Amino acid sequence: MTATAGTEIERLIQLLARLPGLGPRSARRAALHLIRKREQLLAPLAEAMRVACERVVTCRTCGNVDTRDPCAICEDARRDPAVLIVVESVADLWALERAAILRAPYHVLGGVLSPLDGIGPDELNLASLAARVSEGRFKEIVLAVNATVDGQTTAYYITDLLSAYDVKITRLAHGVPVGGDLDYLDEGTLAAAMRQRAAI
Amino acid sequence: MTATAGTEIERLIQLLARLPGLGPRSARRAALHLIRKREQLLAPLAEAMRVACERVVTCRTCGNVDTRDPCAICEDARRDPAVLIVVESVADLWALERAAILRAPYHVLGGVLSPLDGIGPDELNLASLAARVSEGRFKEIVLAVNATVDGQTTAYYITDLLSAYDVKITRLAHGVPVGGDLDYLDEGTLAAAMRQRAAI
Repeated sequence: MTATAGTEIERLIQLLARLPGLGPRSARRAALHLIRKREQLLAPLAEAMRVACERVVTCRTCGNVDTRDPCAICEDARRDPAVLIVVESVADLWALERAAILRAPYHVLGGVLSPLDGIGPDELNLASLAARVSEGRFKEIVLAVNATVDGQTTAYYITDLLSAYDVKITRLAHGVPVGGDLDYLDEGTLAAAMRQRAAI
Repeated sequence: MTATAGTEIERLIQLLARLPGLGPRSARRAALHLIRKREQLLAPLAEAMRVACERVVTCRTCGNVDTRDPCAICEDARRDPAVLIVVESVADLWALERAAILRAPYHVLGGVLSPLDGIGPDELNLASLAARVSEGRFKEIVLAVNATVDGQTTAYYITDLLSAYDVKITRLAHGVPVGGDLDYLDEGTLAAAMRQRAAI
């Protein structure tokens, strides 16, 4: 952008371009769209961002983000209090909530162990996980971490960390994604799906 | 999203999803990114949007958007006052400004003639274009409209509209885009490029 667009518009474009999924070109398109839809979109979005900026906090119990602490999920009495679902990120928590299959509290790790990126156990919410488990309320810990190398390393680390406590530790099943095409799946997934085949 | 993410975060996601280039999934990613980068990104972006919402206006002379009216381009004394560049949209104006090849004032049509979409001459800034040209200051009108059917229809309409005035009406050259691959170009472009071939 040149200065001709007005420094205020230019600044808006530059900030929009820092959102994941938007590059310089789509940031310009988004800025023009916002300016065109001033009342319907720009004003409400500015206000929603101001509110989020002021009120969103991280839940000190589970690591979820919400406008309250403890968050609505931790406070939800209808959830199974004997199960704890461990996830890498709030995005994964949201994904599981959309699936809506197991209603239980969560524990957000805030990442996975990744020695190459300098992320060790102290960088993750592992001490708070051990503390929650040590209270003895949970009977099952579901490690809903991603099926990546780092995710699985983290799962093994947690299994080890929690071995002192009397809890059942489970993980998500491996297999063919629903709607998935066998031809496009890797051998590891196919092997897991075959080994864990189920009666129809 | 379920209500578990907090209605404020949910509202932020829904508004972000209405930006061009962002779908529901990328809006969730963007919201989490914003919450994580509260001080560096969320707060400045909320403020930039508030400022844009309050201060951005459409230039009554040319149709550009700016925080002043007349806009900085219309007020720029270093531009050639005898040339007027007609563009479809502010996005196209910005694109030409980035190319920085011809410094002249603009006239933003706000679209192109498109009978199928119900856009006739009255929906575009054509009366104001004729009024500006009738003042007799311009010697050349560059029709920098898109090389689409609707764009070209609009160009012919404008040529007709301005035929009463003593101005030269020009259009952008057709040809091979710089860096373009002949094999991927349509016949129309290749024919135009060949007809208008130039000595090296």
